[in-house]
Amino acid sequence: MSDAPASGNKPYDLVVRHARVATASDVFETDIGIRDGRIAALARDLPPGAEEIDAAGRWVLPGGVDAHCHLAQKTGDNSVMADDFLSGTRSAACGGTTTVIPFAAQLKGESLAQAVRDYHAVADGKACIDYAFHMIVSDATAQVTQEELPALIGQGYTSFKIYMTYDDLKLNDRQILDVLDTARRHGAMTMVHAESSDCIAWLADRMLAEGLQAPPYHALSRPPVVEREATHRAISLAELLDTPILIVHVSGPEAIEQIRWAQTRGLKIYAETCPQYLFLTAADLGGDALHGAKCICSPPPRDAAAHEAVWNALANGTFQVFSSDHAPFRFDGEGGKKPQGDDTPFNHVPNGIPGLETRLALLFSEGVLEGRLDINTFVALTATQPAKLYGLAPRKGTIAIGADADIVVWDTGLPRVVRNADLHHNVDYTPYEGRTVRAWPGITLSRGRVVYRDGEFVGEAGHGRFLPCERPLAARPRPARHRRAPWLDVLSRVAPDTANDGATP
Amino acid sequence: MSDAPASGNKPYDLVVRHARVATASDVFETDIGIRDGRIAALARDLPPGAEEIDAAGRWVLPGGVDAHCHLAQKTGDNSVMADDFLSGTRSAACGGTTTVIPFAAQLKGESLAQAVRDYHAVADGKACIDYAFHMIVSDATAQVTQEELPALIGQGYTSFKIYMTYDDLKLNDRQILDVLDTARRHGAMTMVHAESSDCIAWLADRMLAEGLQAPPYHALSRPPVVEREATHRAISLAELLDTPILIVHVSGPEAIEQIRWAQTRGLKIYAETCPQYLFLTAADLGGDALHGAKCICSPPPRDAAAHEAVWNALANGTFQVFSSDHAPFRFDGEGGKKPQGDDTPFNHVPNGIPGLETRLALLFSEGVLEGRLDINTFVALTATQPAKLYGLAPRKGTIAIGADADIVVWDTGLPRVVRNADLHHNVDYTPYEGRTVRAWPGITLSRGRVVYRDGEFVGEAGHGRFLPCERPLAARPRPARHRRAPWLDVLSRVAPDTANDGATP
Amino acid sequence: MSDAPASGNKPYDLVVRHARVATASDVFETDIGIRDGRIAALARDLPPGAEEIDAAGRWVLPGGVDAHCHLAQKTGDNSVMADDFLSGTRSAACGGTTTVIPFAAQLKGESLAQAVRDYHAVADGKACIDYAFHMIVSDATAQVTQEELPALIGQGYTSFKIYMTYDDLKLNDRQILDVLDTARRHGAMTMVHAESSDCIAWLADRMLAEGLQAPPYHALSRPPVVEREATHRAISLAELLDTPILIVHVSGPEAIEQIRWAQTRGLKIYAETCPQYLFLTAADLGGDALHGAKCICSPPPRDAAAHEAVWNALANGTFQVFSSDHAPFRFDGEGGKKPQGDDTPFNHVPNGIPGLETRLALLFSEGVLEGRLDINTFVALTATQPAKLYGLAPRKGTIAIGADADIVVWDTGLPRVVRNADLHHNVDYTPYEGRTVRAWPGITLSRGRVVYRDGEFVGEAGHGRFLPCERPLAARPRPARHRRAPWLDVLSRVAPDTANDGATP
Amino acid sequence: MSDAPASGNKPYDLVVRHARVATASDVFETDIGIRDGRIAALARDLPPGAEEIDAAGRWVLPGGVDAHCHLAQKTGDNSVMADDFLSGTRSAACGGTTTVIPFAAQLKGESLAQAVRDYHAVADGKACIDYAFHMIVSDATAQVTQEELPALIGQGYTSFKIYMTYDDLKLNDRQILDVLDTARRHGAMTMVHAESSDCIAWLADRMLAEGLQAPPYHALSRPPVVEREATHRAISLAELLDTPILIVHVSGPEAIEQIRWAQTRGLKIYAETCPQYLFLTAADLGGDALHGAKCICSPPPRDAAAHEAVWNALANGTFQVFSSDHAPFRFDGEGGKKPQGDDTPFNHVPNGIPGLETRLALLFSEGVLEGRLDINTFVALTATQPAKLYGLAPRKGTIAIGADADIVVWDTGLPRVVRNADLHHNVDYTPYEGRTVRAWPGITLSRGRVVYRDGEFVGEAGHGRFLPCERPLAARPRPARHRRAPWLDVLSRVAPDTANDGATP
Repeated sequence: MSDAPASGNKPYDLVVRHARVATASDVFETDIGIRDGRIAALARDLPPGAEEIDAAGRWVLPGGVDAHCHLAQKTGDNSVMADDFLSGTRSAACGGTTTVIPFAAQLKGESLAQAVRDYHAVADGKACIDYAFHMIVSDATAQVTQEELPALIGQGYTSFKIYMTYDDLKLNDRQILDVLDTARRHGAMTMVHAESSDCIAWLADRMLAEGLQAPPYHALSRPPVVEREATHRAISLAELLDTPILIVHVSGPEAIEQIRWAQTRGLKIYAETCPQYLFLTAADLGGDALHGAKCICSPPPRDAAAHEAVWNALANGTFQVFSSDHAPFRFDGEGGKKPQGDDTPFNHVPNGIPGLETRLALLFSEGVLEGRLDINTFVALTATQPAKLYGLAPRKGTIAIGADADIVVWDTGLPRVVRNADLHHNVDYTPYEGRTVRAWPGITLSRGRVVYRDGEFVGEAGHGRFLPCERPLAARPRPARHRRAPWLDVLSRVAPDTANDGATP
Repeated sequence: MSDAPASGNKPYDLVVRHARVATASDVFETDIGIRDGRIAALARDLPPGAEEIDAAGRWVLPGGVDAHCHLAQKTGDNSVMADDFLSGTRSAACGGTTTVIPFAAQLKGESLAQAVRDYHAVADGKACIDYAFHMIVSDATAQVTQEELPALIGQGYTSFKIYMTYDDLKLNDRQILDVLDTARRHGAMTMVHAESSDCIAWLADRMLAEGLQAPPYHALSRPPVVEREATHRAISLAELLDTPILIVHVSGPEAIEQIRWAQTRGLKIYAETCPQYLFLTAADLGGDALHGAKCICSPPPRDAAAHEAVWNALANGTFQVFSSDHAPFRFDGEGGKKPQGDDTPFNHVPNGIPGLETRLALLFSEGVLEGRLDINTFVALTATQPAKLYGLAPRKGTIAIGADADIVVWDTGLPRVVRNADLHHNVDYTPYEGRTVRAWPGITLSRGRVVYRDGEFVGEAGHGRFLPCERPLAARPRPARHRRAPWLDVLSRVAPDTANDGATP
Repeated sequence: MSDAPASGNKPYDLVVRHARVATASDVFETDIGIRDGRIAALARDLPPGAEEIDAAGRWVLPGGVDAHCHLAQKTGDNSVMADDFLSGTRSAACGGTTTVIPFAAQLKGESLAQAVRDYHAVADGKACIDYAFHMIVSDATAQVTQEELPALIGQGYTSFKIYMTYDDLKLNDRQILDVLDTARRHGAMTMVHAESSDCIAWLADRMLAEGLQAPPYHALSRPPVVEREATHRAISLAELLDTPILIVHVSGPEAIEQIRWAQTRGLKIYAETCPQYLFLTAADLGGDALHGAKCICSPPPRDAAAHEAVWNALANGTFQVFSSDHAPFRFDGEGGKKPQGDDTPFNHVPNGIPGLETRLALLFSEGVLEGRLDINTFVALTATQPAKLYGLAPRKGTIAIGADADIVVWDTGLPRVVRNADLHHNVDYTPYEGRTVRAWPGITLSRGRVVYRDGEFVGEAGHGRFLPCERPLAARPRPARHRRAPWLDVLSRVAPDTANDGATP
Repeated sequence: MSDAPASGNKPYDLVVRHARVATASDVFETDIGIRDGRIAALARDLPPGAEEIDAAGRWVLPGGVDAHCHLAQKTGDNSVMADDFLSGTRSAACGGTTTVIPFAAQLKGESLAQAVRDYHAVADGKACIDYAFHMIVSDATAQVTQEELPALIGQGYTSFKIYMTYDDLKLNDRQILDVLDTARRHGAMTMVHAESSDCIAWLADRMLAEGLQAPPYHALSRPPVVEREATHRAISLAELLDTPILIVHVSGPEAIEQIRWAQTRGLKIYAETCPQYLFLTAADLGGDALHGAKCICSPPPRDAAAHEAVWNALANGTFQVFSSDHAPFRFDGEGGKKPQGDDTPFNHVPNGIPGLETRLALLFSEGVLEGRLDINTFVALTATQPAKLYGLAPRKGTIAIGADADIVVWDTGLPRVVRNADLHHNVDYTPYEGRTVRAWPGITLSRGRVVYRDGEFVGEAGHGRFLPCERPLAARPRPARHRRAPWLDVLSRVAPDTANDGATP
């Protein structure tokens, strides 16, 4: 180990002692030596650090990577979501998440590159943990797919989300192919919100015309078959172009069946689910109509059988990613989710629920501590795999030499009741109010700095830095010699990728 | 049996003696007594008929119902397909088909009712066998789906085809839902051409831009995944509205897998395939580019593995219908399929191939005589099930008391080589030129009249009559108490069907 | 029609007028002329018969073929089941069944040919409707599989049942292969009772050792996975030898999944279910332990979800046959099902329940009249397909020229409450006591003779005749040129079948 | 880091510099400090070691764990396999494998505990790398399953293999349940050789009786359906008892389909494949009959389509383990595989092929370097997952603090031709003779000691130590509250496990 002092005459800025570390594949006991924000040494007998944390008896895990959350995002009506980069990343840190990847969202008619620049302006100096950007491509013009996107991919924006529903965001199939083709040729990852726009509109229009407008009709207007159809379609478009996609916020067995089928056939179809599909049901949209609006999100929560299917798909590897889909709308106030009287139609309620801070504790408690998931799978789903799939590995998502010292020391000697009053977001409710969990982060480190300890946020705005992303390994083109579909040969002639031989060097 | 003479003092106009009859479920030996064009008696010792046919030792089957053929149909460029109701039905009769159901095709902007009226004008007085009309709905306006269609269904036009591809015909998903909803509420059958328009256009544009325009690129621009995606989508839309559909001209295992999956789940998804998916491959589009154009149709023929999958799905009940999809374009001449030089792009070649006359002989020979299908399944696929699914049963599609005397006496003591010179359509080629078959119709009766015998057409224009169709039993709404999906309860409130309790009376 | 009088100067012995006939594929209105016990003529205006029945407004269907029932069968402990050929066929006739196929059961160590001879002695002169014999092969010696079985097949015993469970009946896999090989080479149909003997014994022994011996533990000792495993195994053995099997009394979705999977792959796997899997659940084994014993059968009834799966598989063609599995054990008395006190272990209760008389009415009422099955499917499942699969077609199972006049005129203007007091078997209970049905046979004809009318049995012992069976079409060997598995080529060298080219003549 | 010198004044015995390390989840650059045979420190700037290896530019991976290999195992005829613990572990080390888990095989009639003791005697002092023992249970008496096995599990023998074929080894289903029940109750892992004994014997007997005895008939006597059936059966037995199994040496798509189906349903079914199912086909058993015998193993190699299916199942997570199934029989000489003339029947050829030394290079070359598998998946399949599934983690199978310093530095700047002359086993052939690979181990460390370097074995007999195994995490009983099958509730009453709540502490 270098003799050069890291801080004073101490070789490390911080040493986490007696850590029971889990990565996505291993469990080991070690001290962790941190220097300059990175993990500099792992050994059981490290010399003293300038600062020390004793983790004896506790799980020490990579900080969470929340690969699906919305911060300070403009919404259609020119308002902005309730959490900005400060409150959002503060809430994340307090929940054990150390990297967020919110969305630089293009509005129709807007330049995507400009959307990215604008979003940097919104983020600059505010974040207390590190962040990367996904992009949302809502206007897939030739300018965007052929010029802006390739350039942005090269600049570290290597993933983008597309929507198959929402009038102001959705692409049609041809536009999706244009985007997927760009992703294929330039090695980027495409995220897909898979619900059929036409089906939803057809159902919703009829319901609303009949006065069926309370929150439960939101769920009834988006039945599972609507999600399944779009999932199959997205898989087919990706298969046609032999490029990976990641289906976000999958809600239940119908879509899971499609994804599993595609994976079984060897397609690179990745998938994400979220806490609302494990812990909420469509019944949560009912009861008091005003209250039910809090749980409106899309796809809607399903039922207990769906929960079982989602747990199973987390355990058997169908899902790679567990994210929050944090969409911070306040219940009360201007632009809030609270219906303005009983006659507010469900489609006027903003879609989305908060979840950045509760994501990890819920999964740790009900997944790991209940024996549904092992600890490695927990780490993989919440940190390592999102980091890898979005080009942030090996810097984020694991505890390894050279990685950023984004680390969480977990408390599992609980119970603890979830109360919105204890959370740090800028939303006035949590859908999990009153639920008991048995795990909660004790200490969160962001690049070696303690940003949360024992219930208190101790970080600061501006500590967090923007992370340019690599092209994900999963998005590297398949070697041409391994392609068997005849049309792919043609495709490679008419739309060549920036290929290499696909081999790991 | 009535003593009243049918013709002179003979109780029957015609008796077919010693017939080995197969229906879709049974085989029996009998004489068939025909009076007034109908099957009046079945017994082994019928008194003499005014006319007699001795069928001893031969299969006597219901005349074929070709539920998918195009006659005298206007094409986009204002020309008309090569077979009119005379040449088309003549060709059908000579091939053992006694009922055709061509398409009254709506052009965009046109009234559907007017299209039906116009098509009657085209058909009147020409057909030599009976015919019904499907409709093609290409402009699903509210006027069409809410007024014209319900009225037409009530008038005997109880099936309609929709397209998911072809710019001048295709409907988007929302329009498809409008049509399916009308079908559900009024008890009609919807046929679906399932290929993804956007995928095809995306691929074709790139190929053509690179100069890849020979006929083989037609097949490469419509790979199986494109058909599979649309098939899954059509199934999903039908499932959403709990109404049956029939997927036409299914080409191979990818789409079959979706259909079988839906049937396994209990959905009323029906399916049709055609000779080209058993006897042609994509390689038939190659070789001499000019020749290859003859085999351009959509979906394109696939490969030998697909043939096996199609045979299997015919045998195991996945397919209910075997049709020709006869689309009569001449090879030579104005509007023909022959490319005008090597630089004619594949998408300028009219889609479709002739097959009315060869449909039954090919399937009998390679299916029944080769042991792939039993004789009942042959009858079911070619006659009984299409008649039932399109509301023509019990009048058509079987040999039973009261049914029209549409009967074919088969010769199986062959071989016979298929030669276009021997066929009776108005097309200057057959894709099956030179193929040897071991079965061919010997005699065809249409409503008791011999219209074909021993290679000669002996019918006459005008003998054939228009057949109004009943609402098919398969399209009767499911009893409300058997519906379990929550959104269907809502649906039945916002879009009630003209329901009954679904029970057989 | 022949001028020769059938009876006096009447050409027909009996005419059924104005029948609304359904076959397995068609529906038509006709008179039915019966002469010498056969259907001699179908027409709408038949001359008078010596006897006449007016069926106007009523369904007239082929008499049921109950292809799975046990009559006068010796049980392990040297007693005999409660219904002999008189009471059993009387009960069948009163329930609309006109053909039964009980089992000539070989005991271990016994000659199969002798078992058949003995069974004839038991049956002779007793039956009031026609009957064929399945055999039960419980001792698959070389003598049996290589000499007796081939001879018996040639003599009209073309189907046999084998057991994968029950100590006194079961064959091991190698013995099953020997039997299947004989079936393949000689064109017979093998029925399989598919439950895993070892699994059941393992579970049952442990339960009984712990004193868990009440009837509900019968069901718990045979969970669905036990049936599924044996079903997959039977399918695999049949696939290995490329010969058909028919899985009897399938109870729920797990086994159905395997069967459907095999059919989807093109294997000739046939399947049967029974009323107990639609109308009873495992809960019926509970409650009062004494009462629960009445419903002990194997596989055990499952639950409501299984009912849905079975209905679905009846409607979508996965099942070909609906039988009673009538196993007549009395509740009270010597050898009865009634436990002798609470400590009678479940495995001492005879397995099986009565159902010959209620089979058709239950399915008609809940299937056809509730809209779950169409009338053709009802006929196919209850009459035509069993007749075809066991070599009794075209004589039995349909209404067609030349077929035996086994006909049922149905009453559907009911409700009627099922009461054992009204049934005609020799069993002192029915598991369906108190259930309301909406259909019941009005008149049953056996070979043209009325054997049941309006609730009264009017047949007589000895009217019924033994039916030798043909080799079923489904059991004809596949043409060698259509076999693709390499080991089948070898098999055809080492164990050649009595093959033909598989083609329908 | 401790100031205490490890060796002289150097803190580490060995430092591997500039290693590009891959674990099963991560990739990172580091120095590796080794002390006392363990990985003591990971950092980029470690102080000097007593010994140093510069790995710059090379992959540094965990040493392979070959979880399926046969060493010095007695065979039925009282001979012993050709590799003992010295030659076998030497060969392993030279191929990059640092842990082997051969089998202490019980012979019928023998005590299992005695077999373990005997096997220790065979192994003692010979191995040059570490080793654990699986056991083979071939005589599942109550003594064995209820007394010996539980005791042995507690002593560090936590996995055992059972056979569904081979007369001298196979268990029947009931015996398998006894073994699985012991595994469930005591937390052990059961490996299953899944081929149907009865099917194979039935086929083989007929072939041999007809004189079909050359090596290719070995493959024809064990077609894929035979493996699939046993796989489904094993899955069902494991599902019945809710305990995990690992299906070894899976050969192709039929068995894979069953395994994937089980995993999709959430069952803990694990699976292994081997090089012969990626690189050999049944055709390799043909050609010169004498040569073909070299490739006789069970299940037999399949075909190119099977290779694709196996690659796919390696990539998509269906397989957890890639082993050699090294079964060292010499070709020439007493007890060798070489047939003694053309009339040696295939079933007299010993089953199994050598592969310890070539396993990793083949998979690295064709898997990683060809882009079919990423480097983490390679590590997972060959080291980490076998270590975890058999209770050797965290000591073996990864590069992490505290783990044994079992490390391989890889050379990928090749090609290299596989020659048996270059291998270190005691077998006189390799089936991969002449094949070119692009990767080969450069240096192998076993507990920090170099045992292989640049083509030379430099280890020594006796360095390797026996490893007692922990109960694998995967074999921990599922928490009772997560069990839903009703029979499992009963099971837990009649056969309670030594349960805990299943939660990770």
